[in-house]
Amino acid sequence: MGRFHAENLGGRAPSVELVRVVDLVEEVARETGERLGVPWSTSWEDLLRDPEVEGVVIVTPTALHAEMIEQAAAAGKHVFCEKPISLDLEPSVRAVEAARASGTKLQIGFHRRFDPDWVAATERIESGELGDVYLFRTSLRDMGPPAIDYIRTSGGFFVDVTLHDIDTARWMVGEIDEVTAFGAALSDPAFAEAGDVDNAVVALRFASGALGVIDNSRVAGYGYECSTEVMGSRATVRVGHHRRAHVEWLSPGAATVDYVADFTQRYPLAYLLELEGFARAIRDDSPVAVTGEDALAAFVLARACDRSLLEGRTVRVRHEERADGVLYELPEAA
Amino acid sequence: MGRFHAENLGGRAPSVELVRVVDLVEEVARETGERLGVPWSTSWEDLLRDPEVEGVVIVTPTALHAEMIEQAAAAGKHVFCEKPISLDLEPSVRAVEAARASGTKLQIGFHRRFDPDWVAATERIESGELGDVYLFRTSLRDMGPPAIDYIRTSGGFFVDVTLHDIDTARWMVGEIDEVTAFGAALSDPAFAEAGDVDNAVVALRFASGALGVIDNSRVAGYGYECSTEVMGSRATVRVGHHRRAHVEWLSPGAATVDYVADFTQRYPLAYLLELEGFARAIRDDSPVAVTGEDALAAFVLARACDRSLLEGRTVRVRHEERADGVLYELPEAA
Amino acid sequence: MGRFHAENLGGRAPSVELVRVVDLVEEVARETGERLGVPWSTSWEDLLRDPEVEGVVIVTPTALHAEMIEQAAAAGKHVFCEKPISLDLEPSVRAVEAARASGTKLQIGFHRRFDPDWVAATERIESGELGDVYLFRTSLRDMGPPAIDYIRTSGGFFVDVTLHDIDTARWMVGEIDEVTAFGAALSDPAFAEAGDVDNAVVALRFASGALGVIDNSRVAGYGYECSTEVMGSRATVRVGHHRRAHVEWLSPGAATVDYVADFTQRYPLAYLLELEGFARAIRDDSPVAVTGEDALAAFVLARACDRSLLEGRTVRVRHEERADGVLYELPEAA
Amino acid sequence: MGRFHAENLGGRAPSVELVRVVDLVEEVARETGERLGVPWSTSWEDLLRDPEVEGVVIVTPTALHAEMIEQAAAAGKHVFCEKPISLDLEPSVRAVEAARASGTKLQIGFHRRFDPDWVAATERIESGELGDVYLFRTSLRDMGPPAIDYIRTSGGFFVDVTLHDIDTARWMVGEIDEVTAFGAALSDPAFAEAGDVDNAVVALRFASGALGVIDNSRVAGYGYECSTEVMGSRATVRVGHHRRAHVEWLSPGAATVDYVADFTQRYPLAYLLELEGFARAIRDDSPVAVTGEDALAAFVLARACDRSLLEGRTVRVRHEERADGVLYELPEAA
Repeated sequence: MGRFHAENLGGRAPSVELVRVVDLVEEVARETGERLGVPWSTSWEDLLRDPEVEGVVIVTPTALHAEMIEQAAAAGKHVFCEKPISLDLEPSVRAVEAARASGTKLQIGFHRRFDPDWVAATERIESGELGDVYLFRTSLRDMGPPAIDYIRTSGGFFVDVTLHDIDTARWMVGEIDEVTAFGAALSDPAFAEAGDVDNAVVALRFASGALGVIDNSRVAGYGYECSTEVMGSRATVRVGHHRRAHVEWLSPGAATVDYVADFTQRYPLAYLLELEGFARAIRDDSPVAVTGEDALAAFVLARACDRSLLEGRTVRVRHEERADGVLYELPEAA
Repeated sequence: MGRFHAENLGGRAPSVELVRVVDLVEEVARETGERLGVPWSTSWEDLLRDPEVEGVVIVTPTALHAEMIEQAAAAGKHVFCEKPISLDLEPSVRAVEAARASGTKLQIGFHRRFDPDWVAATERIESGELGDVYLFRTSLRDMGPPAIDYIRTSGGFFVDVTLHDIDTARWMVGEIDEVTAFGAALSDPAFAEAGDVDNAVVALRFASGALGVIDNSRVAGYGYECSTEVMGSRATVRVGHHRRAHVEWLSPGAATVDYVADFTQRYPLAYLLELEGFARAIRDDSPVAVTGEDALAAFVLARACDRSLLEGRTVRVRHEERADGVLYELPEAA
Repeated sequence: MGRFHAENLGGRAPSVELVRVVDLVEEVARETGERLGVPWSTSWEDLLRDPEVEGVVIVTPTALHAEMIEQAAAAGKHVFCEKPISLDLEPSVRAVEAARASGTKLQIGFHRRFDPDWVAATERIESGELGDVYLFRTSLRDMGPPAIDYIRTSGGFFVDVTLHDIDTARWMVGEIDEVTAFGAALSDPAFAEAGDVDNAVVALRFASGALGVIDNSRVAGYGYECSTEVMGSRATVRVGHHRRAHVEWLSPGAATVDYVADFTQRYPLAYLLELEGFARAIRDDSPVAVTGEDALAAFVLARACDRSLLEGRTVRVRHEERADGVLYELPEAA
Repeated sequence: MGRFHAENLGGRAPSVELVRVVDLVEEVARETGERLGVPWSTSWEDLLRDPEVEGVVIVTPTALHAEMIEQAAAAGKHVFCEKPISLDLEPSVRAVEAARASGTKLQIGFHRRFDPDWVAATERIESGELGDVYLFRTSLRDMGPPAIDYIRTSGGFFVDVTLHDIDTARWMVGEIDEVTAFGAALSDPAFAEAGDVDNAVVALRFASGALGVIDNSRVAGYGYECSTEVMGSRATVRVGHHRRAHVEWLSPGAATVDYVADFTQRYPLAYLLELEGFARAIRDDSPVAVTGEDALAAFVLARACDRSLLEGRTVRVRHEERADGVLYELPEAA
């Protein structure tokens, strides 16, 4: 993922000038720096000390995110960081507050907010064309599971995967009052042994009264799925595009099209545009599109899904509108 | 709906010979009989006494279904009856038992089981091509609501609408262990006043462990929706066809296709084939495709959805496999 | 094809009452008559003498069509006949004139005129929604070739296949002034040996000035194709639906739908509706939708394609509007 | 178009380093240079003398192309030039020979060769998956016409528009033996007055024996169309993707998707990739994907279309395979 972002930073995002690359693994740092024609090192401090660096893009293991955000904020660097900020609420909050206190920007990698299709749909919803929202429905499914070692440290299915859909739900429809989560470990006993699930359904009730449904899978098999439908009183919109090449291949009795295999195939443009958007926010000193507060909101709601699954009940969540953004309260155990 | 079935019986289902039509309203009976060229009357008894009549197709208000099934069974007539058999379990069970006792066939109008698309998908699932089922997802949505008077006597959203999806779930995936229902009255306060909802989501857990999601609406607005997806370990299948005419109309900047408005537009063939199937089952003395026991199962599960919504909790349902078919137990209040 | 029509006549077309079936092969006649529950015989004369018979459906080898139409007309029977009336112009004209003289109806089997999709598109064109037509484009392709023996007596590719597209062009856009035909025998030398082609392109110039393109193939391989596009000044319409079951099957990396294999799969409804339309025209004494004159027009234009291919040049055709319909003149050799 | 290319050169094509921009109009030069952060001038000579410049991208009126290619070749600069090289054959040939003589690369802007969809289809054809090609069919249509002043100096519809399809035909299927062109001026008498057409159909016969059909329009109205089908003995492939946003908008009774309006909406990626490809060919000293010889071939074939339309006959064209590429002979008047 780091290399993927580096490619975009290195020559495809017009507003970005890549200054340097850092990786703890010398070989990766050197190979990437040389390919992209920029200085490289294995030292995060080099980067924080470099006066030319205005912003940093953090693509490290989750365990390092929060501290790095704090250090970057202290060094006056804007931060783009992959989600989640942390697997715990407290360091997440601290990181967000550090960025806020230092006046630096913090953007979290909910790339779907930059995909032109989702943006087009959301703009039409916001313009009122859809009327009142009745139902939000979304699917996010991986073709195959990651290594079980990853699963064990992932923070669980809801924080690792559903988080994206929760953010999309908040973005397209609004704040959420209730979550009810259902899960099952169906493909491999390793999921159950790790205390996790490989398929899940989450029912939502929005503050507006609208209903929502999320389905997620680690093992869709046929490909990577990311599609959403929002049904409203005046119209309904569907987003979902799953082809790399727009070629229809006709063989005896069948018409076949390809299906994307993963998020890099599905969202090449969104991943480019989120970095371009981050750079523009810095250049124009305008707000970033996905804030640390958004990341906190999705995180708390994902943890509420954990609780719902564990306790077998609907979990209500409270939120408060503040100047800095919405603040959700982590619900207590029953 | 009676006239709709009569048209199919009168000249489109090859194995059917329409013998007579009966309607309490003389004008409807006469007009239909004359148009289709068969005797007509306003007397149900005429029909039961007619030795030429092998089977009857009952399309009356729900309140009359159960008793008419019993009477037909007593008269030795096979019965096709629209769903539900009754809004109460006891008369439903009695009607099914009456048919069973008399050795007559009883087929319930779950038309989707006769739609060639659904049949093709289900056959491929049954053949093992899909592998293990992980997720079942289905939508059934009406374009606009019926009159509020109908709502008041409909038995509620789950018995009136969700019943179809529950039957499809059982047919395509298998028996169901748990339901959790969510509902909201969003379009018109009349729904809430009638103690009903106009949008609903139902989460299912199948006996196999697979998860399921149903979404239903009375007010989809854009058209009539009936689409299903079954995701499995080897493949995933999607069914859903929503066009009357397969014409693409291109005007400046837009490509537009039509969308069906109701079930008669969506399922003309399925409604024909369910009557043809009923006639063939009589002719060949073979089992009907949707039994009274299937209707009872769906009914109990829909009532479990009512309870789930009312009590705000997941409801477990027990079922028992018997020689005559599966028997679900109506769950008790919490 | 005879059995296919007989099935539709025997129980699916509400306005039709099948009176009897006739086939020279006793076994076919008996088997069909018994299955459909009507008298059968091997004698065409039986049918012509039967006073109960109002109309006949002729599905015999082309060589017999013209004479049978004349005989039926003489007996006062309305006729539905498969295309072409004859491989020669003179008997075709005589048959059409015989029907006209006897006051009986003659309908030719251009089934596409009864397909609901084509009808919907044509109605919108006729209503003016499309504006002026600029381009007509249509494809008719068979999955695989018929036996070479059939090819030898088929009258050639243009009369056998392109005829349908020529009729569609006249129906949707209007009369035709010029044809230029291109052909090639690419799949099997047997086509060239039979003096025929297996792939063809025909350019049209309509009397309105609009351009047209037809492509035809005997060897499309992937399936049966029948699709049309009409581009106009205000809108463009596309018709073409090629699926039996509307099931999308997703397997790793691919989404696959089925493709129809032949005209029976593509046009079950159109074949039913053309017979129903014939019966209604008789019952209501209204004009048939495809007249003998229409068949003559398409025939002459197909022969003009032959000439164009043979002589390697554009062929102009003259037509005259008469009370009975348009009359095209067979063009002379260069 | 110059600005469009400049945007891609300035920050989206990773292998490109934009050195300077030149435009005769000072304001355009300055504005573009300043926006992209590179030196600018109004002098073509500045550019030719700049030792840092390895290649130039020429987006000037057609009348200047050939001479500029020669000058750039003389200065040792590689050239990317928009099509056509010239409206006359002789200067076109001279330009191509100048580049060849100087050992510099010359790439012509047939962008479709860089579109990932077309590339994917062509690779599968080349790999043999399609078998023998029977039919090639392609459409290229503009939503609305350019100013009539442009039409008058465009070189005619075939050189201006059909040229792209001819190149695609040669690329996907192979060399061409015969063209027959049909045209009509239907939307506006100005086309006829300018001696041009606004709609055209071109039939092709390939050297392999395969048939081909091109249709082109200046006035499609509904949008920009660019779609191709290649039918083969083993499979058939269709390419054509016409959406900016992949959003389906459902309103009462209709499902609507957007349709692209012009080539910039249709081919953003292809236009970027053709410049990236040019840069890589320079960097790696590898052949360009579309040569000057390819441009000459398409040009001669487009002129053969002119002749065919003018003389109302099929025009045969001869080609010769040379070391430098195929050479087509301009056909003589009949």
